[in-house]
Amino acid sequence: MRKLLLLLMALTVAPLLRAQTLTSPDKNLSFKFELGEKGVPYYQLSFKKKPVIKPSALGIETKDVASFLDGFTVTSTELKTVNDTWNPILGEQKTIRNHYNELLVTLTQKAQKDRVIRLRFRLFNDGLGFRYEFPKQKELNYFVIKEERTEFNLAGDHKIFWIPGDYDTNEYPYMTSRVSEIPSLQKKATVQISAQQPIPNPSVQTPSMMKTSDGLYLNIHEAALINYPAMHLNVDGKTLKLSAHLTPDALGNKGYLQTDTQTPWRTIVVSDKATDILASKLILNLNEPTKYQDVSWIKPVKYIGVWWEYFVAGKSSWAYGTETNVKLTDDFSKLTPNGRHGATTQNVKKHIDFAATHGFDAVLVEGWNIGWEDWFGNWKEEVFDFVTPYPDFDVKELHRYAAAKGVKIMMHHETSASATNYERRLHQAFQFMVDNGYNSVKTGYVGPVIPRGEHHDGQWMVNHYIHVANTAAQYKIMVNSHEAVRPTGLHRTFPNWIAQESARGTEFEAMGGLAPEHATILPFTRLMGGPMDYTPGIFQTDLSYYGTGHGNRVNTTLVKQLAYYVTMYSPLQMAADLPENYERFPDAFQFIKDVAADWDETYVLEAEPGDYVTTARKAKGKNEWYVGGITDENVRTATINFSFLPKGKQFLATVYADGPDASYDKKPQSYTVKKVAVTSKSVLKQRLASSGGVAVSLKEASKDELKGLPKL
Amino acid sequence: MRKLLLLLMALTVAPLLRAQTLTSPDKNLSFKFELGEKGVPYYQLSFKKKPVIKPSALGIETKDVASFLDGFTVTSTELKTVNDTWNPILGEQKTIRNHYNELLVTLTQKAQKDRVIRLRFRLFNDGLGFRYEFPKQKELNYFVIKEERTEFNLAGDHKIFWIPGDYDTNEYPYMTSRVSEIPSLQKKATVQISAQQPIPNPSVQTPSMMKTSDGLYLNIHEAALINYPAMHLNVDGKTLKLSAHLTPDALGNKGYLQTDTQTPWRTIVVSDKATDILASKLILNLNEPTKYQDVSWIKPVKYIGVWWEYFVAGKSSWAYGTETNVKLTDDFSKLTPNGRHGATTQNVKKHIDFAATHGFDAVLVEGWNIGWEDWFGNWKEEVFDFVTPYPDFDVKELHRYAAAKGVKIMMHHETSASATNYERRLHQAFQFMVDNGYNSVKTGYVGPVIPRGEHHDGQWMVNHYIHVANTAAQYKIMVNSHEAVRPTGLHRTFPNWIAQESARGTEFEAMGGLAPEHATILPFTRLMGGPMDYTPGIFQTDLSYYGTGHGNRVNTTLVKQLAYYVTMYSPLQMAADLPENYERFPDAFQFIKDVAADWDETYVLEAEPGDYVTTARKAKGKNEWYVGGITDENVRTATINFSFLPKGKQFLATVYADGPDASYDKKPQSYTVKKVAVTSKSVLKQRLASSGGVAVSLKEASKDELKGLPKL
Repeated sequence: MRKLLLLLMALTVAPLLRAQTLTSPDKNLSFKFELGEKGVPYYQLSFKKKPVIKPSALGIETKDVASFLDGFTVTSTELKTVNDTWNPILGEQKTIRNHYNELLVTLTQKAQKDRVIRLRFRLFNDGLGFRYEFPKQKELNYFVIKEERTEFNLAGDHKIFWIPGDYDTNEYPYMTSRVSEIPSLQKKATVQISAQQPIPNPSVQTPSMMKTSDGLYLNIHEAALINYPAMHLNVDGKTLKLSAHLTPDALGNKGYLQTDTQTPWRTIVVSDKATDILASKLILNLNEPTKYQDVSWIKPVKYIGVWWEYFVAGKSSWAYGTETNVKLTDDFSKLTPNGRHGATTQNVKKHIDFAATHGFDAVLVEGWNIGWEDWFGNWKEEVFDFVTPYPDFDVKELHRYAAAKGVKIMMHHETSASATNYERRLHQAFQFMVDNGYNSVKTGYVGPVIPRGEHHDGQWMVNHYIHVANTAAQYKIMVNSHEAVRPTGLHRTFPNWIAQESARGTEFEAMGGLAPEHATILPFTRLMGGPMDYTPGIFQTDLSYYGTGHGNRVNTTLVKQLAYYVTMYSPLQMAADLPENYERFPDAFQFIKDVAADWDETYVLEAEPGDYVTTARKAKGKNEWYVGGITDENVRTATINFSFLPKGKQFLATVYADGPDASYDKKPQSYTVKKVAVTSKSVLKQRLASSGGVAVSLKEASKDELKGLPKL
Repeated sequence: MRKLLLLLMALTVAPLLRAQTLTSPDKNLSFKFELGEKGVPYYQLSFKKKPVIKPSALGIETKDVASFLDGFTVTSTELKTVNDTWNPILGEQKTIRNHYNELLVTLTQKAQKDRVIRLRFRLFNDGLGFRYEFPKQKELNYFVIKEERTEFNLAGDHKIFWIPGDYDTNEYPYMTSRVSEIPSLQKKATVQISAQQPIPNPSVQTPSMMKTSDGLYLNIHEAALINYPAMHLNVDGKTLKLSAHLTPDALGNKGYLQTDTQTPWRTIVVSDKATDILASKLILNLNEPTKYQDVSWIKPVKYIGVWWEYFVAGKSSWAYGTETNVKLTDDFSKLTPNGRHGATTQNVKKHIDFAATHGFDAVLVEGWNIGWEDWFGNWKEEVFDFVTPYPDFDVKELHRYAAAKGVKIMMHHETSASATNYERRLHQAFQFMVDNGYNSVKTGYVGPVIPRGEHHDGQWMVNHYIHVANTAAQYKIMVNSHEAVRPTGLHRTFPNWIAQESARGTEFEAMGGLAPEHATILPFTRLMGGPMDYTPGIFQTDLSYYGTGHGNRVNTTLVKQLAYYVTMYSPLQMAADLPENYERFPDAFQFIKDVAADWDETYVLEAEPGDYVTTARKAKGKNEWYVGGITDENVRTATINFSFLPKGKQFLATVYADGPDASYDKKPQSYTVKKVAVTSKSVLKQRLASSGGVAVSLKEASKDELKGLPKL
């Protein structure tokens, strides 16, 4: 009887041994899974019959148990369709559709006592997600990964927007080249960054954005990076094969797994429209819904900070003392004050006043706590305690003052990448925040990691960031992590992890400048994984203004900085410039005061990576719309079609535009603000200066309000 | 004027450039420091004119800054004498004398911009302690150690009691050989132990006990191991040079230091009497006094446990379920019970009853918390949570029950060496203890360490153990750490860290047996650093008794187990056998019930490493004395001279002796108990069986009480 059953099963699965196909709900994407010679699994993907990924092997090489590479037979396949919607806590749109066809393949290794793994493929209209799953079974409990062998065989020598593979930093400037050119450009691309660990062989980081010569857009990344190292991509410039390169630990191992478990999703977003790439919610859809019960305390945050002055004004510093060697047990009131400390009670009060006057939620204060004298470059474990203020920062008084003004102070937990020290002190640190009225924290991981030998992108640190977010949630604290591994949509699961840096942000404008095209690439790369705390809003772009010998320049016009609040999605948005600079340009500043940070709808109107992005969004729960458009170094005319507005109504549009003589390098502060009447039939053709932008705010208006205004 | 001053200083220090000598307060020890060629520092030591350490180099090799090896000149020397006393919280004697002559040498490296280090030497009557000090200075803030280059050039090919160097375990059986024989014996000595990382070159661990052919005893160890890796000793079998070998981290680095700082003390205890070695308080004297304000809650603990049954009875297990793959998020009530779980409410109550009846302070319960199904061998980080009991262990009910009986339950925190997991959960774990009436914890570190690549003896873990002890003190919790780095007298500074395992203890009697000489070596080696939780008191030494196919045997007589409570100092003492075995031998058990664990005075009466130890102690605050004597495999007659008793008084002595036919391997349970009258003039000559012992309890007695008793 047993034999008979087995025979029947074999008959049932026999056809599966060859191949299994799948199409996306809209039929544009076609996917094929098959077992190759020696039982190696392969997949391939095409879009409207154009190959996207040529047959590419799947597998995982292990260190201790037999590898998951070959000798597989297909035991079963299951097909499923899901089509539903869900509502993010904070997001670019109120409702997200989750529509895919799924293929679940169960693979058995007969030579390994019928050990089983599963491959789960989800084909959406906007791309493919797949992962490896390791069910609980007698023959498999624990294993150590040597390398993941997932391949992405490209169908051509695409144009690619890339930064070099590195285990410790994602703050590189973007390169644009052909895939085949990466090996020869790797060295040039690897600019110096503190605490970097570049991968020696040609490799790129994800999200990796490509464009084929026949006009397909293609983005490779991952979703739901939990308990696994971040994936980089080895690049074979000759065969155009990309392949997974996981971040190792101190011993060179690449992951410690226990069944029942799975890898993160490997994602390939595809379209023939660049705007579709930006509109894709595939990565979010592949993340798990949050398990938090109460999310009422998770809110968008617009903030200012005691921050930019550390980079540009030349007058202030994080550190309080002139000493270069301090210990947390020292009496910091005995240090020699350097006279330039930024986080003083008085300076913070000034910022609280400004925030209250202009409607900001919070004031970030960096440099408030002891330890900044020697925090960097010493690989010091007990570097900060997160609870002891400098002598000139009065925690209780500022708590009282901020509360009276209806403003929150944003906590800053720079860890110097001493993660063990942070974990040890985490509960105390969060309790201190609760006790003193803080509800959000900016974390920082500058420098080489402790545990020494671990990397920012390794499994241990990946788990650390999640541990911090999860623990913060217990205290109803929102987290904005800097220098952490790049996001993979985990803000769906941990919605209090509201934003991350994890890329080259505005601070680099004060350290050599960002390329004019930089912010047109970010939405196609870094932001595919989640919101970025880009810290826009710099009005005083020429930094020589400060007379401190600062030769740098923010490489945008003033208006482009406004546009960022729309093109660069984040529920956490900083107005990063000094308060006094906003007071010099109150009409332009009005846009930053008005703009929303959480949205009902998003419309990507125009986009081309490396060239331009124009995006419109409807504010969450309000009849207000905001549009942002940016360009690279090339002057261009943005076309803003207002068809996203409700039909048959009148709207008051305030248009913030580059002045006719504006340019990022010569006249960045030339701008105009004009009010016009628009309807859903209006189209605005707006000239953008070199590295310029356009910003528009819209609200429904009565005829009276529009009286005398020109029409578009 | 400045030049003149410098000249005067130079004149003052000129004589120092050659050498500086020092003698011990009793003049027996002579020490010499000198700078050799190329400005390399050397020291040497002799005892009663016999060389102990021949001229040996000092220095530290660094990775980042210039090394501290040569190019030194002596800038100043300072001499000092200290002679005072102090009282340990718990200890072998009420008052400890701290008497030494000190030489502090300031060394300058001119080629390194006059960078300065200091060498501090303290010469006691019982030996030498010295350390490197790195004062805060402009030219030195942070550095990374490549290796410490401290040498110990032996004056002869001494007999040595040793275990092989290993970064992760100190649970080796002892070898006895000549120093020159170590290289050829290294392989044999390196028996298999879980999570071991033997040093490849010939090396030994400290405390390293030696005896010269002309009868000198010599012990090398370290004191106050804080923020530094543990030191092993490289062995050059040809030149008889021992040299420091620090434990590396994951990257092979050996220490990260920040000035103002110092190394631990390197200690050399010397005497021509073996008993003096055991009586030495040099290591304790070199540790810092505690900074704890309230120490009233730190008390000696005599305890029993749900423990030995896991090793011998064959019937019970730490784990609750039959599963071999569990996660802390699992519902453990859904596991399949294996029917052998030891830590059940009922079994613990039985132990509480026994403890209450016989006056024990506490009951250790291992296996109470979820996670034991797959805790070992999987290098699993989230292995225990320290707060969730198994379904059959009722925390609240046992809290109530134990409190009602006046007994404490001893917490067990096995970490599986996942130190990061433990640190993350530490406050929660200790708060759980406080909430549920626990005041002491046995910690365990079985397995390879997480952070992966770190070692049990490395700087990071050294700091971890101290962090745990220090944090426990905040909760008034006493700590007994197992599988931690061996102690270095830190129980003076952290007196709640009352005991450690850190050597091959009684558990190994159930896993192959300990050599009969083992416990005669431990006081000269492992116990030089601090108290050991040796877990003595096994009455049922033949483990075949349990009928579970257990072929092992505890290699002592029953009486030798009694003697351990005196020969093996610890303020934490377990009666490790099953309660039912004590009930079978109530007269012998009486000694365990009576014996103290904290002392006013200690008298080492006889001792020879590897052969025998006889020790007498006066109970803290009581007119009671206890004597323990043990021998190795050789029958011998111990001489117990009662001259330590107050003169002119009468004492009732209860003598627990091996029976005339006793032997550890054939008749271990043959013993006699007799009461005799003694005075300070009495001398007891007592025959000890092969691996046997003698135990005596004494109390002042009236004539009536002594009536009819024989006199010694």
